[in-house]
Amino acid sequence: MGQPVSVGIVGFRGYSGADLVRILSRHPHVQPVLLEHREDTGDGPKLKKPSPLRRAPCHPDSVVSEGLKAVFLATQPEVSMDLSASMLRAGAKVVDLSGAFRLGTAERYKKWYKAEHTQAELLADAVYGLPEFCRERISGAHLVSNPGCYPTAANLAIRPLIEAGVADRAAGIICDAKSGTSGAGRKPNARTGFCEVTENFSAYGVLNHRHVPEVLQISGLEEREFSFTAQLLPVDRGILETVYFRSSTLKSPEELLAIYEAAYATEPFIRLHELGSFPDLRGVARTNFCDIGVAFDAATGRGVVISAIDNLVKGAAGQAIQNMNLILGFAETDGLL
Amino acid sequence: MGQPVSVGIVGFRGYSGADLVRILSRHPHVQPVLLEHREDTGDGPKLKKPSPLRRAPCHPDSVVSEGLKAVFLATQPEVSMDLSASMLRAGAKVVDLSGAFRLGTAERYKKWYKAEHTQAELLADAVYGLPEFCRERISGAHLVSNPGCYPTAANLAIRPLIEAGVADRAAGIICDAKSGTSGAGRKPNARTGFCEVTENFSAYGVLNHRHVPEVLQISGLEEREFSFTAQLLPVDRGILETVYFRSSTLKSPEELLAIYEAAYATEPFIRLHELGSFPDLRGVARTNFCDIGVAFDAATGRGVVISAIDNLVKGAAGQAIQNMNLILGFAETDGLL
Amino acid sequence: MGQPVSVGIVGFRGYSGADLVRILSRHPHVQPVLLEHREDTGDGPKLKKPSPLRRAPCHPDSVVSEGLKAVFLATQPEVSMDLSASMLRAGAKVVDLSGAFRLGTAERYKKWYKAEHTQAELLADAVYGLPEFCRERISGAHLVSNPGCYPTAANLAIRPLIEAGVADRAAGIICDAKSGTSGAGRKPNARTGFCEVTENFSAYGVLNHRHVPEVLQISGLEEREFSFTAQLLPVDRGILETVYFRSSTLKSPEELLAIYEAAYATEPFIRLHELGSFPDLRGVARTNFCDIGVAFDAATGRGVVISAIDNLVKGAAGQAIQNMNLILGFAETDGLL
Amino acid sequence: MGQPVSVGIVGFRGYSGADLVRILSRHPHVQPVLLEHREDTGDGPKLKKPSPLRRAPCHPDSVVSEGLKAVFLATQPEVSMDLSASMLRAGAKVVDLSGAFRLGTAERYKKWYKAEHTQAELLADAVYGLPEFCRERISGAHLVSNPGCYPTAANLAIRPLIEAGVADRAAGIICDAKSGTSGAGRKPNARTGFCEVTENFSAYGVLNHRHVPEVLQISGLEEREFSFTAQLLPVDRGILETVYFRSSTLKSPEELLAIYEAAYATEPFIRLHELGSFPDLRGVARTNFCDIGVAFDAATGRGVVISAIDNLVKGAAGQAIQNMNLILGFAETDGLL
Repeated sequence: MGQPVSVGIVGFRGYSGADLVRILSRHPHVQPVLLEHREDTGDGPKLKKPSPLRRAPCHPDSVVSEGLKAVFLATQPEVSMDLSASMLRAGAKVVDLSGAFRLGTAERYKKWYKAEHTQAELLADAVYGLPEFCRERISGAHLVSNPGCYPTAANLAIRPLIEAGVADRAAGIICDAKSGTSGAGRKPNARTGFCEVTENFSAYGVLNHRHVPEVLQISGLEEREFSFTAQLLPVDRGILETVYFRSSTLKSPEELLAIYEAAYATEPFIRLHELGSFPDLRGVARTNFCDIGVAFDAATGRGVVISAIDNLVKGAAGQAIQNMNLILGFAETDGLL
Repeated sequence: MGQPVSVGIVGFRGYSGADLVRILSRHPHVQPVLLEHREDTGDGPKLKKPSPLRRAPCHPDSVVSEGLKAVFLATQPEVSMDLSASMLRAGAKVVDLSGAFRLGTAERYKKWYKAEHTQAELLADAVYGLPEFCRERISGAHLVSNPGCYPTAANLAIRPLIEAGVADRAAGIICDAKSGTSGAGRKPNARTGFCEVTENFSAYGVLNHRHVPEVLQISGLEEREFSFTAQLLPVDRGILETVYFRSSTLKSPEELLAIYEAAYATEPFIRLHELGSFPDLRGVARTNFCDIGVAFDAATGRGVVISAIDNLVKGAAGQAIQNMNLILGFAETDGLL
Repeated sequence: MGQPVSVGIVGFRGYSGADLVRILSRHPHVQPVLLEHREDTGDGPKLKKPSPLRRAPCHPDSVVSEGLKAVFLATQPEVSMDLSASMLRAGAKVVDLSGAFRLGTAERYKKWYKAEHTQAELLADAVYGLPEFCRERISGAHLVSNPGCYPTAANLAIRPLIEAGVADRAAGIICDAKSGTSGAGRKPNARTGFCEVTENFSAYGVLNHRHVPEVLQISGLEEREFSFTAQLLPVDRGILETVYFRSSTLKSPEELLAIYEAAYATEPFIRLHELGSFPDLRGVARTNFCDIGVAFDAATGRGVVISAIDNLVKGAAGQAIQNMNLILGFAETDGLL
Repeated sequence: MGQPVSVGIVGFRGYSGADLVRILSRHPHVQPVLLEHREDTGDGPKLKKPSPLRRAPCHPDSVVSEGLKAVFLATQPEVSMDLSASMLRAGAKVVDLSGAFRLGTAERYKKWYKAEHTQAELLADAVYGLPEFCRERISGAHLVSNPGCYPTAANLAIRPLIEAGVADRAAGIICDAKSGTSGAGRKPNARTGFCEVTENFSAYGVLNHRHVPEVLQISGLEEREFSFTAQLLPVDRGILETVYFRSSTLKSPEELLAIYEAAYATEPFIRLHELGSFPDLRGVARTNFCDIGVAFDAATGRGVVISAIDNLVKGAAGQAIQNMNLILGFAETDGLL
């Protein structure tokens, strides 16, 4: 199998970063190196024998000194912009988990993220990392922009429908999305305290969530055709999205399911449900799978597609490793099954 | 204020029944009597000084012996059918919390509940108990059919939209509904165990939930115009429904909000949110309120209405007491604020 | 009944403060006034029709202008010290929910709270507000120091045992305490985020929690006789404490239960369980009750006492209102049953 | 590495059984075979491509036909008794996860399990499977009795203390135990429904839990010296036990910690915390680790030991696989790190 390859992780104390560490520690060809970016604050319980993982400063020099072939950035967009540039210059490939490079242009970034893009010249080379639809471009990329968690589940549910041309787009496609609280990150805030979230459920980002443009880019929908609501579930991890559409051409639920079977016949991380069965969060927790189930009432033309992922795995760390496998030439499923 | 009036509760050990007991114990004009219908199974912890509430057999004779002016049936439909008939004959008014009398005809009952209706002759006299839209008929009723929990939140969100004629009905109205687990009742089953529900979220009854016809009846929508999915939240109590519509006539979110302000100007249990704010479960827990918030994007015609209730209060026991207040001539809000 | 009396609440946005508002809004003789102490940060969802409660600045002048007979301080100890002094001078009685006045002397405060006491001269007049054991002194007090949540449940479980002289004190009394997360307050921190608490359970303050001296003061135990561990439950509200002791004199569990029946025969807020039944959090949630259950194995002399309260009610706001009832001359249970 | 070895799993739909499947699917030397014992009831969501795992009837013939070297019994005690006998006769080694063979004699089984032992002749050969203290006997065993979840955490916390002779046994050892709900098994019952468990916490089996004799057997304590309470946490998985003791000989917390360091110096699955840090459930979830932290107040002789495990892993499936590794001659940690 040869020597394991070293890869760096910035932001390893956050939720996505911790999942990068967890999954990479079992990867057959890779050895993670923790790149210390900030002061150690509140690492939690302390074991007598600490983790044996290597640590190095979060600095471009570590790319050479540690022999890093790739660096994961599980950081805020403004940090990711700076580090992407310097790590690429130092010779590492970069998988960025932030929103910094997802939207293609500095204008769109400014519109949705309400901030200036400081590395606009990198945008042209950044490849959107949804392997099911962008696999070939990812394989040759130096900078992969890992998709948002909501858009991952949305695009995997919606794009086959649009490609097959069976949805009445004028009637609109609805995506009602629910996410576990880890999607908000580890930093304490007034909305994600235990007592605010437990026994509660609430909507936020109604119609204007910044993940919307990622769905439009990949699905091919126009903004006016797509309604999206993000909602906060009292669970740690998991996203479930319920997609509604109308079709005057589909003849049966079997025909709908066949569209997804054809689209995903060879995909290792997409699992389809039998008719009458639907995904749940439990089925995908701590996996890189996206589970999909469908329903259709032929008499009235009403259709539903439900997709579920683990927001920290297929929605973040797992998909980032799937992308790393592609850019470093490993088998796409290495460490992920 | 006069003497308190006695009212009976059948099914007081279930979740809705327990909330009837809880709320009626604080009602200024009413004294609850627990009508023992089945063997006492698993009452939980035992205090030295048991509840001081009166108990009587669940038998029509108790209507006379206990002087019951009304009886609440928090029972399964087949039990409710029998008891409604006998309690009415004994002279009590009845508020039935089951689905037995909600659908108007025996045919529709059979279609959606997969069982014969054994008291079809009572259907004509049963009044659907959604006070916001049926208040006058309720006041004169002997048998009130308390609405389902999902339809309560759905109709309060949807009917103003339909009455105002602003929704493009051909594009369909979507209701994505999420309910706490108490909606499934107290009887243990394989899907509602703690380990199945915690850290999970799942859909059931996609497009074919038996609460759908109640929404059609009150909202005025046709089945082909309405898509509904019921989903199970890892919370004890609460329902939140996210309703999507399209409108080519509405000019602004303010205009949308004004429709609801007009519709509910004098309603004591409907609370509207300011634009930009949306209901959550916590805000309505253990209250009889239905909270409603709206959003509309005038440029694209996409609209969202979010409603939240406590499924055991406005969705069951609280609304049943609101109905009792109407049929016994008390103030509609007595015991409920 | 006469005119309702006005009372002020400082810290009404915190969890204890919100429960003060909730309970006082139903109190038959009292009208709460919200005393604005800090900037309004993150009030959450906004209803069109805001709360009708009166608001006034948190300033001694409001005591006169609003006619406040009492002021509740649901604030940090350092804030409570300042406000207690100024509100007392302005003529209001004060119920302080912080730890500022619980420990009797400035030395003990400094030892356990690691800070100087700035109002040491008030300590002599402050009365510890555990009505079950200090009722008479409370009735005449101007400054009531409301007990900590853990000590309330601990003292109600332990003191009857010590007074009866049946515990072998040399073997030690163990109190294993578990609290809901609201006990940590509303301010976001790294340990109380939803994702840190859900599906978790952890100990903190092992053997050295600052609530220990309150237990010693009231129970009569020496520190060497008492082991206490505080632990964080993944629930919003509730405290359950499991107390272990050994006895070479008790003859039976019935004898143990009789000690509690005698001690609490006339107490309105203490409920005893039958032998074989034990309290749980659900039984006391949103009530001012303390539920107690006991077990004893006569063959080996091992005993257990379990107490449960709602940490925000009997452990904070409810008990504070019970104390207010005493100092303002209302019935002790007004607003609390 | 050679051919993988086949092992059977009975009870694979239960919670412990599902964890056996999950962990064995990653084991480098073993291939699990699902032994179908009962009717398939409620398998949950159905994927189009079902699990590729082999299935065979739960019958002794399958031992030969499938070449099973070992069989796991994740079944009720009465089922385990029958199957242990028949599977052993068919030539498989057996790891039984029930309580059937834990207590050494038929008399003790009857006393604590309230039922007759139907395979008393097997008791003499059954080896108690706590590797940290019984490793050598396990290696040569044909029938391993996998420990209970509570006793695993209790004995790993208590036995070093007793072996070191530092605890004042006359003062008693207290074990306050808290377990996630999966410990109650998958079968629906009135106490483990979501709405009963969420936002709740309760004690059961106070002083008389049937896991007590397992603790006495391994720790060396007498029943009169040991107080145990089992309590139900609103979490899916995990056990945390807080052990209290008194010592007149220990000089410092460091000395206490050194006892555990010496006892577990070479143990792969015991992790010790630094002084001042304590285990939590999150740290051990889905691992085979037992984490232990200690505290001691030298001035007063009060000591605390806290242990945490995942009740389904080190408390059931993981430890069972650790035992299988020993009896089949694999490395003890195979598949478990």
